[in-house]
Amino acid sequence: MPLYRVTLAYDGTDFAGWQLQHPGRGRTVQGVVEEALAQIAAGARVAVLAAGRTDAGVHALGQVASFELPRELPADELQRALNGTLPEDVRVLEAAVAAPGFHPRKDAVSKVYRYELDCGGVQLPQRRCTAAFVPWRLDEGAVREAAALYLGRHDFASLASAGGSAKTTVRTVVRSDVVFSGATLLYETEADGFLRKMVRSMVGGLIAAGRGTARVDGLARALDSRDRRAWPAPAAACGLTLVRVTYPPSPRC
Amino acid sequence: MPLYRVTLAYDGTDFAGWQLQHPGRGRTVQGVVEEALAQIAAGARVAVLAAGRTDAGVHALGQVASFELPRELPADELQRALNGTLPEDVRVLEAAVAAPGFHPRKDAVSKVYRYELDCGGVQLPQRRCTAAFVPWRLDEGAVREAAALYLGRHDFASLASAGGSAKTTVRTVVRSDVVFSGATLLYETEADGFLRKMVRSMVGGLIAAGRGTARVDGLARALDSRDRRAWPAPAAACGLTLVRVTYPPSPRC
Repeated sequence: MPLYRVTLAYDGTDFAGWQLQHPGRGRTVQGVVEEALAQIAAGARVAVLAAGRTDAGVHALGQVASFELPRELPADELQRALNGTLPEDVRVLEAAVAAPGFHPRKDAVSKVYRYELDCGGVQLPQRRCTAAFVPWRLDEGAVREAAALYLGRHDFASLASAGGSAKTTVRTVVRSDVVFSGATLLYETEADGFLRKMVRSMVGGLIAAGRGTARVDGLARALDSRDRRAWPAPAAACGLTLVRVTYPPSPRC
Repeated sequence: MPLYRVTLAYDGTDFAGWQLQHPGRGRTVQGVVEEALAQIAAGARVAVLAAGRTDAGVHALGQVASFELPRELPADELQRALNGTLPEDVRVLEAAVAAPGFHPRKDAVSKVYRYELDCGGVQLPQRRCTAAFVPWRLDEGAVREAAALYLGRHDFASLASAGGSAKTTVRTVVRSDVVFSGATLLYETEADGFLRKMVRSMVGGLIAAGRGTARVDGLARALDSRDRRAWPAPAAACGLTLVRVTYPPSPRC
């Protein structure tokens, strides 16, 4: 059966995350994509794999997913058919035939996440679903110092929520960039992988440092402690977007 | 009774426009603001006037409204009380005591509207409520030429929808600016006032010129004809935002 790879954008606001839940437990991106594929595949059940299992309320600009179809379909036709069938909060940005054996999560080299946080004043209602809000102005220097803590190879156990399925909590963060644009903090990070709620916990650390409720050396110790209770609360889901998944430039992808 | 002036931002997606409707005819911005004020005024009915009666689906970043309260309240307290009571798709950005007799519509000198239009490809789901979409790439030169048609004093009867209450259809457009940002057309226009659906009709003209379904000289004739049937269809409401209302720098405002 031909294997396909699609790049998906979605507005996570009305989704209980990526992963299919038990019936009645909430609408998921995987669920609506599998429903759309079942229609295109004349009722056949099509199982979809994704690079990142985004949580409820988290958005994507470049989620990568794969699936097999019972019959060959040109990629552009597949894209059109999916976009004509999917609900308006999910769109296929690209579709291609995948190399045999392609696995969107296992083959991924790195992932890029972005977080948008409006700080202080009154948040514009137009921003409420795609940016988080805190009522405080943050100290830019302290936020940058905290962001630098995450760079490199660390055991991020203090930043992972319970219930993740990862075998190890060690990850290598290659980018942890802070840009202040007016009253908005834009944070972007890239790593070989992220633990459950890890990016939101990273942003929780930035907020604590920027408000002054935690010192950067205290955060460094909390990171080393590998104890979740030592770390500030994770930031809200609505500010987070999976921007991109990268793969090796090999024939398999 | 003290008179107040507030600057409002709202996400128009879930509103049947600004203006209060008959009960059961739809949720309106005026309706939710008056409800919030009634709570703050201990049940008294508070009538709210606005600078622009935005249509269903149209957004605001700088709508100006006024109302009298039965008792004096410091402006910052009023802002906090309203933002604590209003639904999350409306926010008060500023509140102030208004000069006696201030009327947000009659005293306005000009209004600025912005339109965002994503052109071609697949629209990101995150943009679907605050930007309109057309599946075509537009000819930038033709769009700019059409935008220049609107500048100056014209009878805009061909661009007004029926049902408006304006006494004259003559308006003076002082700004009609086109910026292409990637695949997005950003259009901003300022005038002493706009007729019902006039900005959306202006954008309808830009789209027709940019696609090539109308020539710019044909649009010029259609504008002169003062005949609504000669003008292209108005663009979708979701791309439109009331950005700013300006007032004379007088003690009344």
